[in-house]
Amino acid sequence: MEENLPSLENLIDKFQSLPGIGRKTAQRLAFRVLDFSDEKAYAFADAVIQAKRNIRECSCCFNLSENELCGICSDKNRDREYICVVEDVKSLISLEKVREYHGLYHVLHGVLSPRDGITPDKLHIRELVYRVQDPDNKVEEVIIATSPTVEGDTTALYISKLLKPYNVKITRLAYGIPVGGDLEFADEGTLFRAFKGRTELE
Amino acid sequence: MEENLPSLENLIDKFQSLPGIGRKTAQRLAFRVLDFSDEKAYAFADAVIQAKRNIRECSCCFNLSENELCGICSDKNRDREYICVVEDVKSLISLEKVREYHGLYHVLHGVLSPRDGITPDKLHIRELVYRVQDPDNKVEEVIIATSPTVEGDTTALYISKLLKPYNVKITRLAYGIPVGGDLEFADEGTLFRAFKGRTELE
Repeated sequence: MEENLPSLENLIDKFQSLPGIGRKTAQRLAFRVLDFSDEKAYAFADAVIQAKRNIRECSCCFNLSENELCGICSDKNRDREYICVVEDVKSLISLEKVREYHGLYHVLHGVLSPRDGITPDKLHIRELVYRVQDPDNKVEEVIIATSPTVEGDTTALYISKLLKPYNVKITRLAYGIPVGGDLEFADEGTLFRAFKGRTELE
Repeated sequence: MEENLPSLENLIDKFQSLPGIGRKTAQRLAFRVLDFSDEKAYAFADAVIQAKRNIRECSCCFNLSENELCGICSDKNRDREYICVVEDVKSLISLEKVREYHGLYHVLHGVLSPRDGITPDKLHIRELVYRVQDPDNKVEEVIIATSPTVEGDTTALYISKLLKPYNVKITRLAYGIPVGGDLEFADEGTLFRAFKGRTELE
């Protein structure tokens, strides 16, 4: 029946182009938008445009920002000697939620995957090296927090080799059995990592 | 971290106001929009505004339409003697998918629920009576297809009583065990309906 309603069809298509939204859900969302007041519908459309227009990448760490520097880079209270290297902004947000880490970040915007054409020059790796090189930054430790996947590990290894010449400590997040997890349900990769990363009890 | 990104925060809020979209999903959708090209983001925003601006209710059956009459009401090939009464446009779309029914519709835009303040005057019931009354329409049968819920049944009963004085056949969709369903999993209400609606084998 949507063939008679090109505007509705178009809106459903737009919703469907978002990740994890199928035809049925897109239809449900589009119907909800039709129920909106005019004001609310315009506010929704405007939110899309404003977000797209105002948000850019931090010129230092490539986190999302509405200014030249992001909230973290411009925060005077952060420990500037630490740089945590993450794949994407979503990882950064997850790590920030822990409230354990108070250093800076560096967002690569991807991981190395030559098969998909993602070579080092496609990621913000060169800028990371510049940050570490610059004596003004006084970087002491680079914590690599890429995912424990083939690509994430490759990226971590590549970066650690690149940074070796500079006098900084390079670490990687610990991977193992998740807290509260049951051994029974841990996959072999995780168990292998857990064995390799075992620590001595004191 | 979104506190430093009011535009992003606003977009996430807007997505979260849609049905079935939680915080995590809203965040994922907002990030996807940020990855859009400028052109695609504007097209998305425009789709919301155009849908809201162009789509209205059919003046005859209250289905969604971009014109005075909806695609079904203006289709000369439909059987105009039948009116199928549905709660909402979603029900209409589901019924249209079956391609079994070729009559017209009447969308109530809700079901009677005095508890929630939905009284007959809040629904398009009066307009249905006018349609049935009008000898030009030559209505022969009104098929009531409201949901088999307390509210749906009440609405069906209310409408059937209202239409009794006019010389039309009033029917209700059959409810029972779904095709391919297992008795074991059918709830009591469905089984009760299945018993009540049993038909003789010939």
